[in-house]
Amino acid sequence: MAGDPDPKPTQSYWTSIEADIAAHLKRAIPIRPPVSVFEPMHYLTFAAPRITASALCIAACELVGGDRDQAMAAASALHLMHAAAYTHEHLPLTDRIRPKPAIHHAYSPNVELLTGDGIIPFGLELLAKSIVKNGSNSDRILRVIVEITRAVGSEGVVDGQYKEFLCSQSKGEESWNLGDIEYVCKKKEGGLYACGAACGAILGGGSEEEVQKLRKYGLYVGMIEGMLYGVGRNKKGMEGEVEKLRGLATKELEIFNGRKIEKICSLVQAGLCSV
Amino acid sequence: MAGDPDPKPTQSYWTSIEADIAAHLKRAIPIRPPVSVFEPMHYLTFAAPRITASALCIAACELVGGDRDQAMAAASALHLMHAAAYTHEHLPLTDRIRPKPAIHHAYSPNVELLTGDGIIPFGLELLAKSIVKNGSNSDRILRVIVEITRAVGSEGVVDGQYKEFLCSQSKGEESWNLGDIEYVCKKKEGGLYACGAACGAILGGGSEEEVQKLRKYGLYVGMIEGMLYGVGRNKKGMEGEVEKLRGLATKELEIFNGRKIEKICSLVQAGLCSV
Repeated sequence: MAGDPDPKPTQSYWTSIEADIAAHLKRAIPIRPPVSVFEPMHYLTFAAPRITASALCIAACELVGGDRDQAMAAASALHLMHAAAYTHEHLPLTDRIRPKPAIHHAYSPNVELLTGDGIIPFGLELLAKSIVKNGSNSDRILRVIVEITRAVGSEGVVDGQYKEFLCSQSKGEESWNLGDIEYVCKKKEGGLYACGAACGAILGGGSEEEVQKLRKYGLYVGMIEGMLYGVGRNKKGMEGEVEKLRGLATKELEIFNGRKIEKICSLVQAGLCSV
Repeated sequence: MAGDPDPKPTQSYWTSIEADIAAHLKRAIPIRPPVSVFEPMHYLTFAAPRITASALCIAACELVGGDRDQAMAAASALHLMHAAAYTHEHLPLTDRIRPKPAIHHAYSPNVELLTGDGIIPFGLELLAKSIVKNGSNSDRILRVIVEITRAVGSEGVVDGQYKEFLCSQSKGEESWNLGDIEYVCKKKEGGLYACGAACGAILGGGSEEEVQKLRKYGLYVGMIEGMLYGVGRNKKGMEGEVEKLRGLATKELEIFNGRKIEKICSLVQAGLCSV
């Protein structure tokens, strides 16, 4: 991993996964009737910035010996959950005293609200339907539904968003303390990446130990993502924390020694986190 | 059914189901950490007006010979989906020129937004976890997850809400046409009740014919609900439509003749729809 002289092979690995997920999502969300509903759904799904939690789901599945297809519905569902959360985070609400940086709104607030509301069940439907089709791996996908609903719900992303909202209303950018930042990063990006990695390992048929190690790896990678590009962005004192998390993340992958871990490890190399 | 001289036995049937669902939801959403997240979730779950789609899910399950417990998680999930939709429908958004009748807002808009966002995955998690515990009826519950996500998503409730929004912005209360009202009632209450009845029948082990008959029965009952108490409320010309739907609904239950259908049939008797 550390000795990889050329980042291109791993970069193209992530690029190919991202392209496969995007293609899968495009097929899953054609512009079909009711167009007034599906057109914004299609747009907002792809307008949300990519997060690597989905790609990590595929990479974890492949690392434990699974096929890319086995994790594709879960990876797509994860992106959809993220897109819904991102859309709702940017709604213009009257109690958002310090709103998030303005983004382009292609639709009116109500349409963006409803579209987010449609994306969440749609993502889970995709996942549940992937069981009905395959038939064989029902138990794994069921477990993954619990993993994803928990990661995006009230004890996960929603909790992080709520904490972020409270802090952003009461404090200026400069006065967040490290505990607040860690909490939000852990619940938002940390939780999503941990979920992605765990789901990939579950779907790929990994052992329980592999699932838990990859879950922790995902947690640390996600927290790094949050500290560099999420709520920790432009905040002081992140470098030390990120360095510590890189070490912790790498350690979790030790049980995979002897296998090809360069690709998945590349996520914690500087400059590659956040594809 | 029509000859039932005393509505009390059927009323107490629905009341007992409602009480069981409420008790199940109270156990499922204790006020636990993070309290800032679970307290509003608990409040908004119970603040949403009851709809009978959840109770219909239980009644359908019992009609086909199933136990109440088998449909309890699905019935609870249906109420949670409805509560989330109701909460989001009443958010104060800037493009709601003619907002819905004001309701008491116990929380700020952002908290109500996030709580709704948490309730949707929570409901589906409840359902998915009920498989992991029981183990036996995985396939049925999986099918139910697809049913519910589809009913509440972009081709169901969200589509209805979107149409309602468009009509309410462009037209006064008086100028809705019957087609618009029917569309919204079909997608919102109709879809939820149809889903509830179908899910109950699936979980109770009903035959495919029973599932489809109960689905249609639910559709008509839900549309009646929407015409009397939803978007059709106070609109002209509903009486004839409702009468027609009552006839259609009753007809769907003919295959159950010989069994005890008084209870479930009572939903389409005047004055009992909308418990």
